[in-house]
Amino acid sequence: MKIMVINPNTTEEMTQSIHETACKCARLDTKIHTVNPKDGPVSIENYYDEAFALTGILKEIRKGEQEGFDAYVIACANDPGLYAAREFARGPVIGIAEASMHMASLVAAKFSIVSLFPRDRLIIGELLHRYGMENKCVSIRTCNLAVLDFEKDPDKGLEQLAIESRNAVEKDSAEAICLGCAGMSKLANELEKDLGVPVFDGVAEAVKLAEALVDLGKRTSKALYFEAPTKKEYKGIYKEYEPK
Amino acid sequence: MKIMVINPNTTEEMTQSIHETACKCARLDTKIHTVNPKDGPVSIENYYDEAFALTGILKEIRKGEQEGFDAYVIACANDPGLYAAREFARGPVIGIAEASMHMASLVAAKFSIVSLFPRDRLIIGELLHRYGMENKCVSIRTCNLAVLDFEKDPDKGLEQLAIESRNAVEKDSAEAICLGCAGMSKLANELEKDLGVPVFDGVAEAVKLAEALVDLGKRTSKALYFEAPTKKEYKGIYKEYEPK
Amino acid sequence: MKIMVINPNTTEEMTQSIHETACKCARLDTKIHTVNPKDGPVSIENYYDEAFALTGILKEIRKGEQEGFDAYVIACANDPGLYAAREFARGPVIGIAEASMHMASLVAAKFSIVSLFPRDRLIIGELLHRYGMENKCVSIRTCNLAVLDFEKDPDKGLEQLAIESRNAVEKDSAEAICLGCAGMSKLANELEKDLGVPVFDGVAEAVKLAEALVDLGKRTSKALYFEAPTKKEYKGIYKEYEPK
Amino acid sequence: MKIMVINPNTTEEMTQSIHETACKCARLDTKIHTVNPKDGPVSIENYYDEAFALTGILKEIRKGEQEGFDAYVIACANDPGLYAAREFARGPVIGIAEASMHMASLVAAKFSIVSLFPRDRLIIGELLHRYGMENKCVSIRTCNLAVLDFEKDPDKGLEQLAIESRNAVEKDSAEAICLGCAGMSKLANELEKDLGVPVFDGVAEAVKLAEALVDLGKRTSKALYFEAPTKKEYKGIYKEYEPK
Amino acid sequence: MKIMVINPNTTEEMTQSIHETACKCARLDTKIHTVNPKDGPVSIENYYDEAFALTGILKEIRKGEQEGFDAYVIACANDPGLYAAREFARGPVIGIAEASMHMASLVAAKFSIVSLFPRDRLIIGELLHRYGMENKCVSIRTCNLAVLDFEKDPDKGLEQLAIESRNAVEKDSAEAICLGCAGMSKLANELEKDLGVPVFDGVAEAVKLAEALVDLGKRTSKALYFEAPTKKEYKGIYKEYEPK
Amino acid sequence: MKIMVINPNTTEEMTQSIHETACKCARLDTKIHTVNPKDGPVSIENYYDEAFALTGILKEIRKGEQEGFDAYVIACANDPGLYAAREFARGPVIGIAEASMHMASLVAAKFSIVSLFPRDRLIIGELLHRYGMENKCVSIRTCNLAVLDFEKDPDKGLEQLAIESRNAVEKDSAEAICLGCAGMSKLANELEKDLGVPVFDGVAEAVKLAEALVDLGKRTSKALYFEAPTKKEYKGIYKEYEPK
Repeated sequence: MKIMVINPNTTEEMTQSIHETACKCARLDTKIHTVNPKDGPVSIENYYDEAFALTGILKEIRKGEQEGFDAYVIACANDPGLYAAREFARGPVIGIAEASMHMASLVAAKFSIVSLFPRDRLIIGELLHRYGMENKCVSIRTCNLAVLDFEKDPDKGLEQLAIESRNAVEKDSAEAICLGCAGMSKLANELEKDLGVPVFDGVAEAVKLAEALVDLGKRTSKALYFEAPTKKEYKGIYKEYEPK
Repeated sequence: MKIMVINPNTTEEMTQSIHETACKCARLDTKIHTVNPKDGPVSIENYYDEAFALTGILKEIRKGEQEGFDAYVIACANDPGLYAAREFARGPVIGIAEASMHMASLVAAKFSIVSLFPRDRLIIGELLHRYGMENKCVSIRTCNLAVLDFEKDPDKGLEQLAIESRNAVEKDSAEAICLGCAGMSKLANELEKDLGVPVFDGVAEAVKLAEALVDLGKRTSKALYFEAPTKKEYKGIYKEYEPK
Repeated sequence: MKIMVINPNTTEEMTQSIHETACKCARLDTKIHTVNPKDGPVSIENYYDEAFALTGILKEIRKGEQEGFDAYVIACANDPGLYAAREFARGPVIGIAEASMHMASLVAAKFSIVSLFPRDRLIIGELLHRYGMENKCVSIRTCNLAVLDFEKDPDKGLEQLAIESRNAVEKDSAEAICLGCAGMSKLANELEKDLGVPVFDGVAEAVKLAEALVDLGKRTSKALYFEAPTKKEYKGIYKEYEPK
Repeated sequence: MKIMVINPNTTEEMTQSIHETACKCARLDTKIHTVNPKDGPVSIENYYDEAFALTGILKEIRKGEQEGFDAYVIACANDPGLYAAREFARGPVIGIAEASMHMASLVAAKFSIVSLFPRDRLIIGELLHRYGMENKCVSIRTCNLAVLDFEKDPDKGLEQLAIESRNAVEKDSAEAICLGCAGMSKLANELEKDLGVPVFDGVAEAVKLAEALVDLGKRTSKALYFEAPTKKEYKGIYKEYEPK
Repeated sequence: MKIMVINPNTTEEMTQSIHETACKCARLDTKIHTVNPKDGPVSIENYYDEAFALTGILKEIRKGEQEGFDAYVIACANDPGLYAAREFARGPVIGIAEASMHMASLVAAKFSIVSLFPRDRLIIGELLHRYGMENKCVSIRTCNLAVLDFEKDPDKGLEQLAIESRNAVEKDSAEAICLGCAGMSKLANELEKDLGVPVFDGVAEAVKLAEALVDLGKRTSKALYFEAPTKKEYKGIYKEYEPK
Repeated sequence: MKIMVINPNTTEEMTQSIHETACKCARLDTKIHTVNPKDGPVSIENYYDEAFALTGILKEIRKGEQEGFDAYVIACANDPGLYAAREFARGPVIGIAEASMHMASLVAAKFSIVSLFPRDRLIIGELLHRYGMENKCVSIRTCNLAVLDFEKDPDKGLEQLAIESRNAVEKDSAEAICLGCAGMSKLANELEKDLGVPVFDGVAEAVKLAEALVDLGKRTSKALYFEAPTKKEYKGIYKEYEPK
């Protein structure tokens, strides 16, 4: 089985660390290929950044379809381009936010999300509604660190994550933690040991869900909402992306 | 990895067919052990039946804990005793209703549930709320067949399932089907081929989710809501179930 | 009119104190019969305990049906077995949680529930949804006392209840208090005098609602969701409970 | 115990028929006094009519407070002036819409409301939200008869009610019927016999709930939302209603 | 274009200050006519007060219809009589609470409402539901000042508003403030300058929305819910308001 | 006042027709500048198309900011890029879906949306939730015509719109219609005349709301969720869009 993991931003160090998290949890017979777009922001921290990440994600998925990948993981906790990718790809496409939330909800009645900045609560709120997780999430806490701070100073990142996660458990009655940024993935195991409650980084869960769906022979339903884009003209620099 | 699949009713033929579904999707290194209680109803079709199935489910899980099982699947689409089992067991416990709904929501924006009788809509409604799936489920359709009718006359069962599933796709805009009874599991593949949209029987999805959680080292969080039952006296015939 | 009040746990002292609460509010022409199962936990404090209380509740109701009771009250604030009992019994069955919430909502726009332990918030959350009371309940506060602590040391119980109830009124803007355990019932009047806002213990309200429904000639509707369980085989120790 | 039942419109024949319904269900020791305002619309069928009924309702309640009534029933299924009356009165005030919905929800998982005209769905929708009954109500059906048509031609009224109620049971899976107009109250018993599912007219249920609350010594909580109106000047024709 | 602004209470100083706010934002070709009823409370601070304000509002609107007004603004932040007025008037009728909320939601993801007293949260909660703004409003904060305190001591009013608005921004993550009383309107500009986030007083927004709707030729839809009241008899002092 | 109207797709005929709609409703002193991106799809009919429209929208807005525009309208009924644009621009940014829904809700209790294809219900459902309009929208009906069909054959488009709008009014109890595609805007007036209920095309309403907000001096709040994107590196072809 071949799974493509896409880091939607253009920071290769982060792609590498996501790759390691994905490989660690994958089965021996699963081949993980982790990529990032060449064009776009070095990190995604708002709707504007996201707007410039989408075409790159879809470019990688187009390559994936040509190369016969079985499933895709979008490794940014805003789940950017998830529905566009589901329309385009045949195999399942899993976002790491949805993966962490669904898996957390199987072992915990209530979880908290620990994210980067207070403004993230807007997009996270939209995702919680989309996935039906509004009643499961008891708080969204933030570290006040940027995406790339977790690359530059992982120790500081872990420290902040630990503080906010412990607050979530003790003050908000969370029983599990979902991490709000793919850059935090590499810290999940250490955080979990420290906290004593399950920590879901999203990347690992997305890979396992992708494996499970492929094993079960399930692909994105093309019956209605995720039908392939209809053939039409795209102009200018996006000409090459025209749906056929 | 050892997974115990519990058919909550006392019909052994059904336990056997659930076992086959579970084994077919399990990985080579997963050992599936499928059981049913000795005491209780031959099928579960209302809250009253369910009340007499719970102690049997918990008895099997107690055995499982003694024998070192890694995870449990409760193979009845009412997910009876799920929260009680989560309190008692250490490894993850997955209900087949929640498994089918969560997995369906990863490949379809909207799904329908095809169940047995109109009265099932009450318990299914409670489960949809519990799992956050109220917005994903566009209809609950019913076959007007009893649980054991699917054992006695699978062809009739498949026919009815196909009619209602097709109605769900065509009239209710469902993109995927979740089956509302473990007894329908054996018909899922044939139904899926026939319909052309993904069909989730629940048993297969629960096994895959259990495998994934065990792989990831995730157990039920004991931090708050699913803490082990506190030690106390149980009287009479339930003496042996006393939490220690 | 004959009303059966069922204490779902096996602690007779508690049954006695519930009986007193029920009798105090009942009309002169209402005969209150208060019972508890012989089998099962001495108190109900989680889903596991509840699983071993259900068959005992239904056994008492079966006796009640044979003896011609007009209505039933399930006197545990988790409302265990309520829907199973509604299926089985002909007369109305009232849970004390639903009774306290509905009645509180008639004299207060917002109420709080004062319960035992933080973990109770899971089951209470499910009940609030079931009864449509999510918008009415402004907080669930907990005393950190066990069910039987209210038998052993009622003064301590009243003290804790008063502290948390006052917090609910002052900090959470509650206008009324619903008690989260039948064992607190006997303290309701004293608490109410002390607080100056209405306190609903559930037992008294359930008895009055049962009286009202019987007066009005209303029984549980058997048209669909609470239809009597269909005839089927029950195996082993539950043979005697087979629906006929 | 003295209960004042207020017909909010100025049609005395209807007041008389509401009085009969109220008396029939009241206990022997309950004194029912049924009144209607002298000023205002002969029937209430929209928000405009309602605006001219409120002062009359409050005038009657003011008299009631002076004469020592224990509780009040507002006998119009829009529950007009309910919160204003709760602020003003000391004893409980019950609306017939809320009474019918709460009581129906104790014996039926799902009910329908049968009302007058399609436009009623707006105000009924607001009431369903206010009382937390949105999930319990499966349909609002309408007879296309005006309030006073039920006075003029009760047979025609019963016929239409029966048609729509039967539709609610058969097509919408309702298990109980709540009547959407006090003018229908007198037809409730006959309708119930005919339909075979419980019918709640609201007037009878409100009287029983008022009796129960008075028995339990519960009055409207004055802790916050229903505190008495603060003293202030009212000008012109409403001078006499000034809160003191 | 002629817009009638109705101050629902009988305090003329307040009418004057509302008039100034309305005129300041109106276009040159918009004629603002601001009125208040002669009968009723000098301020509206609960449901009881509101009940005595409705007939006066409708009296003014009746005059407005005779004099050919194009639109109406109800200048009290409880939006009293809004739906009754929509039924009666032909042109659009805008409440200042709805105006401030809708406009705030166009420039801010989340807003807070700063109102008078804690009890206001009940009516505001109902309005938030009615307008679909429950997810947009992060807090309702209160100044503990009465309506007329803002007339008597505007400086004190501004000070309290500033304190609570700043709390809303800093503690509740509000990005905009909606004022909870028409009497606060005149302070909006100064408050906005001070706070640095948009402040919506409601009066100004309602005038601009009324202008926009009139420009677009949109009137209240009379197709169903706001159809004109049907002809019927009104008795006593309300005779003159009979719908024809 | 200068308002930029952005047609997010690359079809200039459509831009022209949107321009005409916008100009017709704008005030004399409002300067409307209507543009479309040079790069991207000729029409937007799914999430994939939308992904290739976002950068073009933001390019136009960047130009607008340089040229001192006061406000922006995004003229596609999916409201693509709305939140990204709000982060980037200083003046208000209005989507035509939100504009039509908010304005419709001021003159109608319930509206329907008439859109293109059944799959649109997914994105429309997300918008309804985002704007709090889930309770206002009684149906989403579809014409089964593509965006550009409304350019090629407006008569056919009007005919289909009229059929579905009339169905919405008659079968779904809609009181107003919101159009689900900017390409339908030019048909709104004729449709409205034909139907007899208000029709909201979104473009006209967005222009009027933009005018109103600019008049009131309200810009997007930059306090939290729509703060300007933080300075960071963008790689490759998107280098020029780097936030400074």
